This record gives sequence, C-alpha cells and structure tokens, in this order.
Amino acid sequence: MIRFLVLYRQPTDVAAFDRHYAEVHIPLTKSLPELRSYTVSRKTRLIRGEDPYYLIAELDWDDKGAMQRAFASPAGVESAKDVDELAKVCPDISSMFYEVETL
Amino acid sequence: MIRFLVLYRQPTDVAAFDRHYAEVHIPLTKSLPELRSYTVSRKTRLIRGEDPYYLIAELDWDDKGAMQRAFASPAGVESAKDVDELAKVCPDISSMFYEVETL
Repeated sequence: MIRFLVLYRQPTDVAAFDRHYAEVHIPLTKSLPELRSYTVSRKTRLIRGEDPYYLIAELDWDDKGAMQRAFASPAGVESAKDVDELAKVCPDISSMFYEVETL
Repeated sequence: MIRFLVLYRQPTDVAAFDRHYAEVHIPLTKSLPELRSYTVSRKTRLIRGEDPYYLIAELDWDDKGAMQRAFASPAGVESAKDVDELAKVCPDISSMFYEVETL
C-alpha cells in the first residue's frame, strides 16, 4: 500500500481554511481515481515536539502506479493546484508519500 | 479509531537508530496491549515542504480508552521511555494522537 500524507500547520485564517477544505478540497480529493481510503485527523493532541499540526490527511492507494495515475488525472492535477489555494491561508503544508509496511 | 503518529527526522547516527529501532523499539511496540495495527514508512519521498522525515510510525487502537490502557501498561511505560533512548541518536521526534475520520 502507498500512503500520501499531508501535514497542515496552523492556518493563518482558520475559518477560510476550514471552508475551502470542506467545500472544495474534500470533494476534489474524493474524486481521485482508484483512491482506496481518505482520512483526516480530529482532536489532535501533541505528545512530543513543539509545533502541533492543525490537520493531518492520509490518502491510500493499492500501489504507487495507482497513486501516480490518480495524480496525473484531471482531478489529481486540480487537487494539487488546490493545495496552492489552501496554502494562501495555511502557509506551512508538507506532504510526502511512502510504502506502508505492516509490522 | 485512534491513531498515534510518530515522526522521526533524520537521525544523527543512522546505523545506531536503525539497530535500536529494529532490536528494541519494534518488539516493545508490538507488545502494546490491544494494538490493532502498527505500520512504518518505507522509501519516503517528500513532495511539499523542506525537511523530510526519516521514519513515520503509525499505531492504531480501536478507541482512546484502549490506547490509554496500552500506554499505562508496563510495555507502554517502557516504550515511552525507549523513545528517549532513540532521541539520543534522533533528536527531532514528534508524536501526536488523533481520532481518524474516514471521508
């Protein structure tokens, strides 16, 4: 399984971020082809470290090929562009993908 | 579901970190009561942001009560202490937990 992890720090405008995420980004993300799972964090509590995340999103695909096809699709291109929109009210966003190994 | 997420930045001593994680931390973590899933990242590739993570670990429990019982158990106390050991060769570790909401 391939996981795409997106870490959003505290938005500069929480109301604008929440509205855009709910009204634009969630529908876009849910339309990504072959997406197997899409989850977001609720009630995050920091245990170690200094800088909490406002939102953690996790998108799973069966394999890297499926993820690559999703991001190459029209919805994928649109979704990536939309992260730049979100960044206007949430300047510190990091994202990465990795193979998920179950121990 | 409750997820406990641990983000390890680049270790100062990769070999020592890898050895300790594999030989001590994985067995300890796997012994946590009621743990439903334990995964780690492989071949992480950063897409957005500047500072990649060396290792991302995710521990899932059915609910917050189960997670709290796990961390209050002897294995849980030992496992938390062991993160301080890992921090000697990987000073930037952050951890948090959150409810996982499926969209």
